[in-house]
Amino acid sequence: MSDLGTTPASPFEVEPWVVRERGLHIDMLARTESVFALSNGHVGLRGNLDEGEPHGLPGTYLNSVYEKRPLPYAEAGYSYPESGQTVIDVTNGKIIRLLVDDEPFDVRYGALLQHDRTLDMRAGTLCREVRWRSPAERVVDVKTTRLVSLTHRSVAAICYEVTAVDAPTRVVLQSELVANEDLPSASGDPRVSAVLKAPLEPIEHDVAGMRIQLLHRTRNSGIGVAAAADHVVEVPDGVSLRTASEARPDWGRVTVSAVLQPGQTLRLVKFISYGWSALRSTPALRDQAPAGLTGAMLTGWNGLLADQRAYLDEFWDGADVQVEGDDELQQAVRFALFHVLQAGARAEERPIAAKGMTGPGYDGHCFWDTETFVLPVLVHTWPSAAADALRWRHGTLDAARRRAAQLGLPGATFPWRTINGEECSGYWPAGTAAFHINADIADAVIRYHDAVHDETFAKDCGLELLIETARLWRGLGHFDIFGRWRIDGVTGPDEYSAVADCNVYTSLMAQRNLRAAANAAMRLPDVAETLEVTEEEMAAWRKCADAVYLPYDEVLGVHEQSEGFTRHASWDFSGTAEKDYPLMLHHHYFDLYRRQVIKQADLVLAMQMRGDAFTPEQKARNFAYYEQFTVRDSSLSACTQAVLAAEVGCLDLAYAYVAEAAFMDLHDLEHNTRDGLHIASLAGAWSALVAGFGGMRDYEGVLVFAPRLPEGLTGLTFSIRHRGKRLKVTTDGNEVTYTLSDHGSSIDLIHHGERLTLESGVPVTVPVPPAPVAPIVQQPVGRAPRPRKAY
Amino acid sequence: MSDLGTTPASPFEVEPWVVRERGLHIDMLARTESVFALSNGHVGLRGNLDEGEPHGLPGTYLNSVYEKRPLPYAEAGYSYPESGQTVIDVTNGKIIRLLVDDEPFDVRYGALLQHDRTLDMRAGTLCREVRWRSPAERVVDVKTTRLVSLTHRSVAAICYEVTAVDAPTRVVLQSELVANEDLPSASGDPRVSAVLKAPLEPIEHDVAGMRIQLLHRTRNSGIGVAAAADHVVEVPDGVSLRTASEARPDWGRVTVSAVLQPGQTLRLVKFISYGWSALRSTPALRDQAPAGLTGAMLTGWNGLLADQRAYLDEFWDGADVQVEGDDELQQAVRFALFHVLQAGARAEERPIAAKGMTGPGYDGHCFWDTETFVLPVLVHTWPSAAADALRWRHGTLDAARRRAAQLGLPGATFPWRTINGEECSGYWPAGTAAFHINADIADAVIRYHDAVHDETFAKDCGLELLIETARLWRGLGHFDIFGRWRIDGVTGPDEYSAVADCNVYTSLMAQRNLRAAANAAMRLPDVAETLEVTEEEMAAWRKCADAVYLPYDEVLGVHEQSEGFTRHASWDFSGTAEKDYPLMLHHHYFDLYRRQVIKQADLVLAMQMRGDAFTPEQKARNFAYYEQFTVRDSSLSACTQAVLAAEVGCLDLAYAYVAEAAFMDLHDLEHNTRDGLHIASLAGAWSALVAGFGGMRDYEGVLVFAPRLPEGLTGLTFSIRHRGKRLKVTTDGNEVTYTLSDHGSSIDLIHHGERLTLESGVPVTVPVPPAPVAPIVQQPVGRAPRPRKAY
Repeated sequence: MSDLGTTPASPFEVEPWVVRERGLHIDMLARTESVFALSNGHVGLRGNLDEGEPHGLPGTYLNSVYEKRPLPYAEAGYSYPESGQTVIDVTNGKIIRLLVDDEPFDVRYGALLQHDRTLDMRAGTLCREVRWRSPAERVVDVKTTRLVSLTHRSVAAICYEVTAVDAPTRVVLQSELVANEDLPSASGDPRVSAVLKAPLEPIEHDVAGMRIQLLHRTRNSGIGVAAAADHVVEVPDGVSLRTASEARPDWGRVTVSAVLQPGQTLRLVKFISYGWSALRSTPALRDQAPAGLTGAMLTGWNGLLADQRAYLDEFWDGADVQVEGDDELQQAVRFALFHVLQAGARAEERPIAAKGMTGPGYDGHCFWDTETFVLPVLVHTWPSAAADALRWRHGTLDAARRRAAQLGLPGATFPWRTINGEECSGYWPAGTAAFHINADIADAVIRYHDAVHDETFAKDCGLELLIETARLWRGLGHFDIFGRWRIDGVTGPDEYSAVADCNVYTSLMAQRNLRAAANAAMRLPDVAETLEVTEEEMAAWRKCADAVYLPYDEVLGVHEQSEGFTRHASWDFSGTAEKDYPLMLHHHYFDLYRRQVIKQADLVLAMQMRGDAFTPEQKARNFAYYEQFTVRDSSLSACTQAVLAAEVGCLDLAYAYVAEAAFMDLHDLEHNTRDGLHIASLAGAWSALVAGFGGMRDYEGVLVFAPRLPEGLTGLTFSIRHRGKRLKVTTDGNEVTYTLSDHGSSIDLIHHGERLTLESGVPVTVPVPPAPVAPIVQQPVGRAPRPRKAY
Repeated sequence: MSDLGTTPASPFEVEPWVVRERGLHIDMLARTESVFALSNGHVGLRGNLDEGEPHGLPGTYLNSVYEKRPLPYAEAGYSYPESGQTVIDVTNGKIIRLLVDDEPFDVRYGALLQHDRTLDMRAGTLCREVRWRSPAERVVDVKTTRLVSLTHRSVAAICYEVTAVDAPTRVVLQSELVANEDLPSASGDPRVSAVLKAPLEPIEHDVAGMRIQLLHRTRNSGIGVAAAADHVVEVPDGVSLRTASEARPDWGRVTVSAVLQPGQTLRLVKFISYGWSALRSTPALRDQAPAGLTGAMLTGWNGLLADQRAYLDEFWDGADVQVEGDDELQQAVRFALFHVLQAGARAEERPIAAKGMTGPGYDGHCFWDTETFVLPVLVHTWPSAAADALRWRHGTLDAARRRAAQLGLPGATFPWRTINGEECSGYWPAGTAAFHINADIADAVIRYHDAVHDETFAKDCGLELLIETARLWRGLGHFDIFGRWRIDGVTGPDEYSAVADCNVYTSLMAQRNLRAAANAAMRLPDVAETLEVTEEEMAAWRKCADAVYLPYDEVLGVHEQSEGFTRHASWDFSGTAEKDYPLMLHHHYFDLYRRQVIKQADLVLAMQMRGDAFTPEQKARNFAYYEQFTVRDSSLSACTQAVLAAEVGCLDLAYAYVAEAAFMDLHDLEHNTRDGLHIASLAGAWSALVAGFGGMRDYEGVLVFAPRLPEGLTGLTFSIRHRGKRLKVTTDGNEVTYTLSDHGSSIDLIHHGERLTLESGVPVTVPVPPAPVAPIVQQPVGRAPRPRKAY
């Protein structure tokens, strides 16, 4: 976000259900590879060109396949993590090379007469249509369609069609598996680069007919990876076909060749399947990938396409957001939802990483982004994926308990960043000290429970997550001489402050965590007993929660982000040039930490997540106060500011923030979409609309709405899932219609402070009250968001 | 200090002027090598056995000869230092091997019939007397005397005498220079070990007669190092002598052999000289070391001995401390003064490192230890060395200005740890954030000025140091809405808190710095003008100083170490086992930072350095409050606690702390004397006696005394230098005699609050008033200092 003003416009066309690039922007390849990435949460393929090059960054990812690497310290400290984890680019199954009369198809040579790529968010496919004239003046049409199956978890497939256009043409297709691709260096540290240069050790390779298979194992983390591909070829009658297959330790290749007359098409369908495990044997792995292939080939290409569409139809039916009056935002919010679904759909007890499976950014790590930004969306749109993500957290509880013990704390301490559940953060003031992640996980458990009432989950996972995090909080906080319960020395969401006392966000989230643990333990006494929860413990949790200390500046009339924050000097915004953002790349942490300057919403996020703890007047004053220091050097800020701006009545400002969150990747606002999409910001685009302009909150299981539209938006409709029902909310800014679509059910909700009971099939229309008088707010010099119309 | 209770007793005999080890404690070799180290601040030799092995840690150091090494980070940040500096073991000139009838003299073989080593603090020599029976039953006497010359800066010398005892004996002496000795690995980081394994690249080697010379250059830091040795041999008439000399790139050897009859002695005097430079050419270096040799050989062995004693006589005459009633403390304080002198005597614009030149601990780095603990001693005992150390700081001003600019600050920011003036700290919360080092340097400038009135120094160095640090403070602090001047986000001396607001020590030292800069600029307006100091700037400094904010807890009636400190939870001392100290090796920083637990005196140090800013009542209450949290996991604490304990009337407690500071290395209290001596703690032993029981303070140039003795000490006498005069203070606890020894001068001083004028040659005796009622103080469980009598 360092120079919003100069960001080039989006290379994509605006359509409601697809993202299309017309022509090929070679200079934006890495960026478009992220935007066009396909994933089901289990297998992820960057949108690399079929022929492999040119590329920005080749990428094929398997959720939780990572390599270990050393974490070095200039000065080590007790319990610093020594080993890091980095997602690796696994065996690439995407590559299909084409030779046209012996001339390799390469967009950098010859002439591209047409080049369109289209991400279809209802079909779940990436299509490419090319007309190419080879340097030898032969013209061919190439049409490829790629999918990562949402119904066949281990499977991806590509349909590749090449058609001769102007003359008889000899075409050769080479469909490949390639392990240990060359990648741009990921780190300035030569040891790290060395470790990650060729992370896969070959174990075996195999060929059978048009099926090829490679087995590897990661060098240090010991994860076995099997990749297999099989093929179906079609040519018109009378065209003769030659095929050949080969494999070597690091590559496999199936070659298909034919001579096509003008108008004739060679069609190759490639099925790819992956299997991997840190535990299973080589023979087991050897069998796993072909098994996936067999299932996919039985379903067939058309079957995979149909299943994909059916899965997505079901998703959109309970999740779509319709925006009237802003076509680009309409496209962007669907793009956002599509990628959020792709990140989590089939993760199934694996983490949802900050970049999903769209790129190697942040080493492929999972952060609090998941629970705080992504799961609130999934809870209301595809709840099973939310449950799966929390089951993954639950599966890492032993590691979190070990970490807590290492730190001298009770309960569990979840890692700030991780793939396998072990802490990978190499800078503790913005890692270990950010204990709020534990309350964020608890918050996601509470939200999931309130929205789904999944008792099996509560008994198997939810209660234990709440209890172990509550135990942590009790150990972290203490009662001072005034009887106030303080949490000292922790880092809140704003990473431009660290290791501060009584961070309001952390304290309020801990309070919610403690109370929810006590309530859930009361509700499930048998499970609580097996977890050794006593009456005394529950009472202690409530006592801490009741006495939590929230620092408040009486002089300024605002909450302090952390104790003493409002006494700090302001950052010198007028003396800071645009090129000096993001500040952490141009200023030392010490300078950031001692001043009033905010990287990302912190107190403002507290007002979204714990809106029940603030009066409307406090919200307005606090929002206005913190807005003047918030520079949004994190992509996890605009969506939260949108929600609170909308709540306090700053609707145009909210609209600007909605756009920033929603266009983060389509406009590459932070200039790093190349490393992968900002999944949490995309999820935040949904929240910004639904919680911002829809005013939705889900405190204590009662749905609250307060729709209100900014100038420029003429309508907003969103559907959510809630306790097995589908609820649709439609507003034109003047009135709102609530519709419950499932037969024979009813729901209570709150509309702008008034309770409504909604019966299924009986839409209720109610007026929107006038907006509150908005406070006067101002951002730091040069850091105001771009107005919506300025994109 | 982790298990004070189990520390073995000192292996040294108690004598007033020497430290003698009778017998050889092989298991304590590394420790005794540090204790017996000789240095002049320019060249340092660990007390390794002449024959090179067995050894604990071989060590030959040249001040400021270091190698660069990478400083790696798991997560890097803006302006983190990337290159570290590590002192290296240079060409070893100490080795003289002896063969007795072809049997190598090695204390691990044969039988040691006698083995005494004696550090003589008046002679400035290390003597060794050995009677050894070889495995072949041949008995020899070996007597060696070693010195590092205080008068010939680049020179060390060894007189080695071997005498046949019981039979005709063929003896061979091999006198060597050895570069790139094998050392125990210094770091867990393999890259660091690699860099330091053989840091010296050979350039040339030379032999001429009995002179050998090796030239090397450090691989990365590019420092040329020349080492040369020449020899004088004596045998009784009639004994025939064979000699040979050789040199190779990494070693040189002079061999001398003779057959001795019983009672006959072979005497070899080895003169060693070093030259080094990062700038000078190979030919210049080649000439430098022999030039030093020539001078030394002209002076001759006896001349070197005589010069050494004369230098030390002069030193002791104005520096000695006499303790009556405690012989071991008497020895320890002289040991302390001797090593403090050795660390700084001839450093001459090179740093005084935390370990002096006695071992590789802390990478050979210089910290605030120098200005805060060492220079206050040198200022009053050997002022020229204090000036030299500050001249070195002044010489690094450009680096400090660059660092300040990097950090966005005006003026200069001196490094937390360094050899060459560049920051080497790899953990910024306890490095960069410890800005107090800048005020500590200013404080040493002020002290030196008050004690010496050296106008040349003030004009050349002192004023600029004061001004550039004052500029820094003005940039670091800010005025809050109440008009209070705050310094936020800094780390004080106590490293169990970090990055806190309004640290009282830092704030008071900054206040002194700002005022002194303004005063000095007024006093030297011409110089100030060349440094671009304006009236406005001086006024601004005074305004900051006048408004400095010192947090005070009205409920508890104590100053807060930093704002909010007294609201933190107490460390769970009763739940902490003795083996869990030092805490930072067993607990995460986050846990230490958020609690009331103090590694080393911080607010208490403020009360020593800025005693003028506290009332006697505040001192007593603050001392008692902070005493209960102070665990002394740093060796830089006991001495300060001694001073304040004495001031508030806790004389027995003060005595215990004096002993802890003074016996730090002779008793190896922290189990790491092997890595080098704790020079600052040794300096602190002097301060603990002189500022503690002597009550000496030197605010604003007026000397203040308040002598008072604990039970067990029957007398204390100390001499100090002050503005070219020598002042002697003698007390028996009941009365005090002040004597000014220089002819025709007078001095004003304050005795227990009353002003006295002292004329030279006219001793004044005054009574000691009764002690104040001491507060009740208690240390954390298990952390009370060992009572003096328990050693």
